[in-house]
Amino acid sequence: MPADPTDAPPLAVSMGDPAGIGPEIVAKAWAARARHALPRFFAVGDLRAIERVWTGKVVAISDPEEAVDAFDRGLPVLAIADAGEIVPGAPDVDGARCAIESLEVAVGLARSGTAGALVTGPVSKAQLYRIGFTHPGQTEFVAERCGIARENAVMMLAGPTLRVVPVTTHVPLAEVPGLLSVELFVAKARATARGLQRDFGIESPRLAFAGLNPHAGEDGAIGREEIEIIGPAVAQLVAEGIDAVGPMAADSMFHARARATYDAAICPYHDQALIPLKALHFDEGVNMTLGLPIVRTSPDHGTAFGIAGTDSAEPGAMIAAIRLAGDAAARRVAR
Amino acid sequence: MPADPTDAPPLAVSMGDPAGIGPEIVAKAWAARARHALPRFFAVGDLRAIERVWTGKVVAISDPEEAVDAFDRGLPVLAIADAGEIVPGAPDVDGARCAIESLEVAVGLARSGTAGALVTGPVSKAQLYRIGFTHPGQTEFVAERCGIARENAVMMLAGPTLRVVPVTTHVPLAEVPGLLSVELFVAKARATARGLQRDFGIESPRLAFAGLNPHAGEDGAIGREEIEIIGPAVAQLVAEGIDAVGPMAADSMFHARARATYDAAICPYHDQALIPLKALHFDEGVNMTLGLPIVRTSPDHGTAFGIAGTDSAEPGAMIAAIRLAGDAAARRVAR
Repeated sequence: MPADPTDAPPLAVSMGDPAGIGPEIVAKAWAARARHALPRFFAVGDLRAIERVWTGKVVAISDPEEAVDAFDRGLPVLAIADAGEIVPGAPDVDGARCAIESLEVAVGLARSGTAGALVTGPVSKAQLYRIGFTHPGQTEFVAERCGIARENAVMMLAGPTLRVVPVTTHVPLAEVPGLLSVELFVAKARATARGLQRDFGIESPRLAFAGLNPHAGEDGAIGREEIEIIGPAVAQLVAEGIDAVGPMAADSMFHARARATYDAAICPYHDQALIPLKALHFDEGVNMTLGLPIVRTSPDHGTAFGIAGTDSAEPGAMIAAIRLAGDAAARRVAR
Repeated sequence: MPADPTDAPPLAVSMGDPAGIGPEIVAKAWAARARHALPRFFAVGDLRAIERVWTGKVVAISDPEEAVDAFDRGLPVLAIADAGEIVPGAPDVDGARCAIESLEVAVGLARSGTAGALVTGPVSKAQLYRIGFTHPGQTEFVAERCGIARENAVMMLAGPTLRVVPVTTHVPLAEVPGLLSVELFVAKARATARGLQRDFGIESPRLAFAGLNPHAGEDGAIGREEIEIIGPAVAQLVAEGIDAVGPMAADSMFHARARATYDAAICPYHDQALIPLKALHFDEGVNMTLGLPIVRTSPDHGTAFGIAGTDSAEPGAMIAAIRLAGDAAARRVAR
């Protein structure tokens, strides 16, 4: 059973790029805290980024513990970063430095246990690269700060009726077949199974593997990766006692009846996983990193600079990310 | 405006493999004809295949014109083929011969105008190959009988809120990048636009192109097909006056708000098109062949031998295929 959430340390939510929709959706999540029964959390970033886009109550805090009491009065903000001049929709390098400093602090608080979990707002990779950020994304940065090898941090996307794990992520489609191996599928699947047990409370997780090729290759007639790689990986996992099935025809495994038969779909490449997740759950998808010593979630969308500052950002995914992080943190405490 | 459907010749529905669910779903579609306001149609195949799985009223006809009057009394069946011993769920070569003979007759009736359109039930490719069938599927067979080059027949999958066109179909994923060209995208898009005008009554069809790579390549950072192939194809189409946009990130173009912005999604490969279509509309997807002189549709599912003869097949996709074919045929008559 999850522990009583009132016992748990508050969650740290890094606001992401101060010129994006991060500050707005964090504030809107706080405003919706009662309706969604959200755990206590505090924002980390530049307090002015919130004040630029939101007129609700903000409580500046200097220690995460203050967030516990402050949370009922206003959105607690640990204002550690100065983003310089903030113009919603107009990102710059000062904002990128603020975003990464906020992330760094929030990771540290989660690692030390001062924060119960880490939720990360959306950042601009283009701006981060301008200031010398060398990681592909926040996930790899967080993994490194946690002392975890990049390949052991697994990206899972979760919506209300579907969880997916892309085995390869941001690589050209032409390179995908060459990157696949039995070892890669087995490693990702093991981490997924452990994550579903630890953070979702699923004792015997059911994993369904998508084929790489149309119709899962039709017994080798349309490609052999199913026979040579995915099938053997599934067999090895089954031999280890993991409930794994497939490879299945990817186009027939994402309708409601099919989704009900597994806890996570393991997909060879990005779009195979992300297309169904976002087609079904565009406004409520959560990115969760499995395999870390801390709980880390993120709303599955970008900075949306085009609508920043217009009060039109949907907070659904941030709300879902905070709730999922809180649930997972409570499960870890209860173990 | 579509013509009064009572004026139109009846549609020819080939039953597909007699041991599959084809006969059952054709019969169930007839039983549901009033509720779904279906146009008149007749089945083509072995009459006994229907009698094995259905106890409703059947009317044997020897000429399609008899179907007009017979339709209100029972399911009209043009019994031209003998499938030998029929065991639901146990396909054999006699059944395959029956399926292809039914298809051949139904195509001929549609070409001559005796039938208003062609609807094809599901066949077993494995059984067809055993009897020397050399086409990849029914679509290519129908195209050849219509005197249309295979590459000019375009497969469109249509559901209530989404239409998709896969630019490549049943090929290994590793071969997809090498098959793409500006010419291929342009040809498929032109045929799609014409088909949407002619058969769906959409005067200025809006086409949205999916990128090949994750995030549509992120300006070349994750693959260059968007810059070198898809982008130029879209530009050429726009120059021709076709409303084309993209390439777009495939994972962000299939949620409800995005789907509302286009009439068809043009996707580089099979799963990118079929995954969202079937995730959203598994039981009602219709396969429509554009670019033919006749109207041809098909339910977007297989023979389902595993449930054949158990009275559990869902007729939704067959009903949708018949309705869509009837609508398209009426539009062609009205032009």
